[in-house]
Amino acid sequence: MSGKIKIAIDAMGGENAPDKVIDGISKFVENNKSDDYKLLLYGDANRIDKLLTEKKIIKNNIEILNTQSIVSDDETPLTAIKNSKNSSMWKSIESQTLNNADISLSAGNTGVLLVISRMILKTMDEINKPALAALWPNQKGMNIVLDLGANIECDENNLIDFAEMGSALYKSLYPNDNAKVALLNIGSEEIKGTDTLKKAYQRLSSFKNNDFIFNGYIEGNKIMDGDSNVIVTDGFTGNIALKTAEGTAKFITSNLKLALQKNIFSRIGSLFSYKSLQNFKNKLDPRKFNGAIFLGLKGPVVKSHGATDYIGFYHSIDVCYKIIKGNLLEKIKNNLSHINVEKK
Amino acid sequence: MSGKIKIAIDAMGGENAPDKVIDGISKFVENNKSDDYKLLLYGDANRIDKLLTEKKIIKNNIEILNTQSIVSDDETPLTAIKNSKNSSMWKSIESQTLNNADISLSAGNTGVLLVISRMILKTMDEINKPALAALWPNQKGMNIVLDLGANIECDENNLIDFAEMGSALYKSLYPNDNAKVALLNIGSEEIKGTDTLKKAYQRLSSFKNNDFIFNGYIEGNKIMDGDSNVIVTDGFTGNIALKTAEGTAKFITSNLKLALQKNIFSRIGSLFSYKSLQNFKNKLDPRKFNGAIFLGLKGPVVKSHGATDYIGFYHSIDVCYKIIKGNLLEKIKNNLSHINVEKK
Repeated sequence: MSGKIKIAIDAMGGENAPDKVIDGISKFVENNKSDDYKLLLYGDANRIDKLLTEKKIIKNNIEILNTQSIVSDDETPLTAIKNSKNSSMWKSIESQTLNNADISLSAGNTGVLLVISRMILKTMDEINKPALAALWPNQKGMNIVLDLGANIECDENNLIDFAEMGSALYKSLYPNDNAKVALLNIGSEEIKGTDTLKKAYQRLSSFKNNDFIFNGYIEGNKIMDGDSNVIVTDGFTGNIALKTAEGTAKFITSNLKLALQKNIFSRIGSLFSYKSLQNFKNKLDPRKFNGAIFLGLKGPVVKSHGATDYIGFYHSIDVCYKIIKGNLLEKIKNNLSHINVEKK
Repeated sequence: MSGKIKIAIDAMGGENAPDKVIDGISKFVENNKSDDYKLLLYGDANRIDKLLTEKKIIKNNIEILNTQSIVSDDETPLTAIKNSKNSSMWKSIESQTLNNADISLSAGNTGVLLVISRMILKTMDEINKPALAALWPNQKGMNIVLDLGANIECDENNLIDFAEMGSALYKSLYPNDNAKVALLNIGSEEIKGTDTLKKAYQRLSSFKNNDFIFNGYIEGNKIMDGDSNVIVTDGFTGNIALKTAEGTAKFITSNLKLALQKNIFSRIGSLFSYKSLQNFKNKLDPRKFNGAIFLGLKGPVVKSHGATDYIGFYHSIDVCYKIIKGNLLEKIKNNLSHINVEKK
């Protein structure tokens, strides 16, 4: 890292944009007192400037760049490539090649974002398939899980790339921790699983670099134990696992809420437990790990949930800031350079 | 169904057997006052009889059949086939071919159980791959999810078989409800997912039989919404999804427990909320849906969790009873007979 961390933000993407984006920025500016970053906001300049002023946001580290259009949710990658080159999403990604931005962030149309990111930024020479990674809480801290849907089918080389990229992401977020990689599988024994998994297991077991500790296979019920923190899988399985966890969490917490409102006693009880229940809720707040990180392009792109609110969007900006501060790209290149050495 | 429902039980399989098995039977006999069933207990006859007497269990509907050995947890299918033909597990499955049992139940070694069940009972002529199905709670009641790990790779014909078998299982457990099938996928749009899923989607969309309503694709976060109740997937994905849900549930409830014990206020609060929290806990008690059902053999086999206690084992016996009472096998045959008609 030299100079300021430049984060290019699509200010018009996602539900309730640009308001939630600007509110998220407001929270970020309040919380981050350093002067080592710059936010490049792409969108309707007049509207954005008016909102920044209204909300009394200090503009020192903010630059607004006017764009003409917005990628809508029903746009396909094909139509977007044709019609959306002046959109806030396109321009915010392009700013990595034209405007020295270090990273791009959008809460807009996922399909379009993935396709045009690949088009504009290009896949890194060292890898074959980029991957979507996300943060996922565990008992001891946080997991990185990848891929989450960018690649339905993956071979062992892809999985090994994911292990190296995921470890680089983990170390850029948590520099004092060891990255501990595990392959998601349906059993922990060596003989279980698909041929692809077995091959990846063999290769990773023989790795001698110190990019990560390889913990072998992990089953779905152990993902949140915290013994591993980089969970590697193909995009189909990863997407199913992440969404199933989301659905399960929602199911349990909504049932808990119902139970605590059931009668006068439980309502009194929850008054007493209020602070502890709030802490419990905060710890599991999905907005805290909002944002999937697209790894393996020549520049990183973060996708915020479209439906998240300004707090979720704030956390996405914060993730952008942290991974650039943690030298993500350098770490990825360094890690990937070890793969061919290991092969020999 | 003619005559009594005959349930063959491996009394020696799983942790704390035969004690937990006998305690589970005790609870079943207490709860089920009908005279329309018979439990065939395979294992150490002296020990079982002693336990039944000690625990004052009415033996009217119980028959004990002495066996010589027990399949241990570290046995492989290969060694079991060679050495375990006189084991409680083997004999309890074989009782479907030799002793007119309708269904077999074991909490023992899963790998061995699946292999010897296939060997002894044989796969149904109509299908290519049997599947493991489980109960999984949703907001409106219960899901059937299959396959959960019997088949790592599945083609569209397998998935269609699973849809028909899962619906038959659903209807035998919940005869007054509609079976609503959905294919687990990473998006709800028709264009998403693997080729296998797309082909299965096409075929199922054109089905005109009334075995089930086809709801299209379902994403992981919607599994527990209750709009569909038969969730169809390959064994790899299903296993990951189920275990991830288990892990997430454990993670959340253990964090909730910690939060409620955090300080004096939250402890007082949980006293007030005690009954509601108990109801919440009961509703989500995994022992209530203990037991995976192996479908597609000429006789059904139920696998109880090895580590469950007598309450979990009781629920497995109850599932055995209910699905035979609900004419599972007939329903499966009936459903499968429609597949070829639909093809024409």
